[in-house]
Amino acid sequence: MEHIENDEQFGGLTVNKGVNQPPVVNPYLRPRRRRVLPNAGELVEGILKGDITTLARAVTLVESLSPEHQAIAQEVIEKCLPHSGNSRRIGITGVPGAGKSTSIDVFGLHVLKRGGKLAVLAIDPSSERTKGSILGDKTRMEKLSVHPDAFIRPSPSAGSLGGVARKTRETIVLCEAAGFNNIFVETVGVGQSETAVHSMVDFFLLIQLAGTGDELQGIKRGIMEMADGIVINKADGDNIQRAQLAQAQFRSALHLFPPTASGWRPEVLTYSGYFELGIPEVWDMIDRYFEFVDANGYFERKRSEQARYWMYETIDEQLRAHFYHNPEIERMLAEKEISVLNNQQSSFTAARDILDLYFKG
Amino acid sequence: MEHIENDEQFGGLTVNKGVNQPPVVNPYLRPRRRRVLPNAGELVEGILKGDITTLARAVTLVESLSPEHQAIAQEVIEKCLPHSGNSRRIGITGVPGAGKSTSIDVFGLHVLKRGGKLAVLAIDPSSERTKGSILGDKTRMEKLSVHPDAFIRPSPSAGSLGGVARKTRETIVLCEAAGFNNIFVETVGVGQSETAVHSMVDFFLLIQLAGTGDELQGIKRGIMEMADGIVINKADGDNIQRAQLAQAQFRSALHLFPPTASGWRPEVLTYSGYFELGIPEVWDMIDRYFEFVDANGYFERKRSEQARYWMYETIDEQLRAHFYHNPEIERMLAEKEISVLNNQQSSFTAARDILDLYFKG
Repeated sequence: MEHIENDEQFGGLTVNKGVNQPPVVNPYLRPRRRRVLPNAGELVEGILKGDITTLARAVTLVESLSPEHQAIAQEVIEKCLPHSGNSRRIGITGVPGAGKSTSIDVFGLHVLKRGGKLAVLAIDPSSERTKGSILGDKTRMEKLSVHPDAFIRPSPSAGSLGGVARKTRETIVLCEAAGFNNIFVETVGVGQSETAVHSMVDFFLLIQLAGTGDELQGIKRGIMEMADGIVINKADGDNIQRAQLAQAQFRSALHLFPPTASGWRPEVLTYSGYFELGIPEVWDMIDRYFEFVDANGYFERKRSEQARYWMYETIDEQLRAHFYHNPEIERMLAEKEISVLNNQQSSFTAARDILDLYFKG
Repeated sequence: MEHIENDEQFGGLTVNKGVNQPPVVNPYLRPRRRRVLPNAGELVEGILKGDITTLARAVTLVESLSPEHQAIAQEVIEKCLPHSGNSRRIGITGVPGAGKSTSIDVFGLHVLKRGGKLAVLAIDPSSERTKGSILGDKTRMEKLSVHPDAFIRPSPSAGSLGGVARKTRETIVLCEAAGFNNIFVETVGVGQSETAVHSMVDFFLLIQLAGTGDELQGIKRGIMEMADGIVINKADGDNIQRAQLAQAQFRSALHLFPPTASGWRPEVLTYSGYFELGIPEVWDMIDRYFEFVDANGYFERKRSEQARYWMYETIDEQLRAHFYHNPEIERMLAEKEISVLNNQQSSFTAARDILDLYFKG
């Protein structure tokens, strides 16, 4: 069949497809269900007990595209919500090659030494295309991947950024209900995901490399100004001086930025993920941040703002999806784009014409 | 009447307003139209001739909220479009006190010395609230306000940022059709307007003041990374050294940023608007920028992207307006916000419920 379709596609031959085969099983026998759908109540019970296998099953439902699975997932999330919120949510980003996996491994181990549990999630809507799915290869986190109190979950790979971000945010709820009081959310730091992560974490950590000029240029514009802390990796051996120079440069650059909404002044530290140097200092900074935002009320305020943000974000995304997935609209958009690019019509009247089609029929 | 209203306002006296006067004209006589609506064709003709009075009338129609005026305005814009585009569009921003008006005055005069014409527009959706409408007081631009080749237009004050930005963008089209080959668009640099301006200009100039720490903190986060050039004002007298220090700091900070989409490396210069020092150097930088983006094709590409951007931006804005201006939706939103903030419902199911109301009935 593959072969025939290929030929058809390239128009080389006309091949008779033949008739459909009759069914080989008796259609009057009702097929046995392969798998019973999980029960939301049981899932919630398991999650609240901290059972990691149940948590993983529930996350799979959250990520599933099947409407049946989604219905159960939403029920589970709703029941877990009152038990969620009790964690430190930390976003970690950095360009490929900055040593994110190794760093998360040692940061995570440091966190776990102090007790509690750690979930490591990721947002990477591009993973399907780029193949290099972050967290996909758990073995890159040697220590965490075998730690009983760590739960590592690669990015859900299917769907739009909005969809992927929603799934990650829902997974945070489930992890928290399961007693995970530390949540790391990883992104690759080169795309659009950072705004989404920034909108679901309490602290945003940017991993940078020492270097001048081009070596520092991989990170996407605007991310630096989102960071609550910048940490410069690979501050070891011959590289220490360069790392310290980069630290001084970043510090002086941050002085030129206005204060963050929290009133916190972002700090810049150096460390070595590979040689495990400077890790407690990084975590002391994060502790200081949480003390600071607990004291000034920003922590609670930001959490509320984020919940509100995601409600409006979801609405806006769905409004757009409903509009742009309309085939008639798509066709007209393509035409209007050309008119606009050729200066035949203004952007605004073009938009108005398409909106008229949408709202008036 | 003025007097009575004033008294009422201050509650000093209660003054009987009296009864309404009967009409003094025969109501059965059809009133003569006070003013004939302008004719689009005539407006276009005047604009293409470069007549500034006609241009100003057309801009008033663009800014008008009356549907009749809007219809004419859109026709005029459509007819002007093929004659638009031939200008350098420069966004100029800086915090209040940075000396924007004085700077625009001397920059503008410098530009006009080289020939051509200059339109100075503004985006400031907050001007109604803050009273301090930018460009509202033309006399702050002493030289430009009396220059025959300059057209200064304050920000349209009514409406949302989206609406104000649209009007400014349409005004650019009319100005260009009238032969204005230099367009300045001013913003205050503390709000949301900068993204809008950035999306309608070729070059984004950020005016800063010399100073350390808090003095540099007025500017909104993220704006620095948008700038194609940063210029430090008040580099005169005792302040020269501080300005040069700030220049060095900004230069070193910009080194940490990734390259801009254009490939251009933003430059940092010092000048004095008041003493008119360093003005040609600032303009040489802008000339270099235009040579650079002309040569690498970015200029044309960005203009196309901006036209497309505004089409999609208008669509998204209208989709949101249609949704949020629905009284039933507004009521449900208020309820759902509370559920979300109290962790009774997830952001996503809350959004889903409201969307169901919108789409299904």
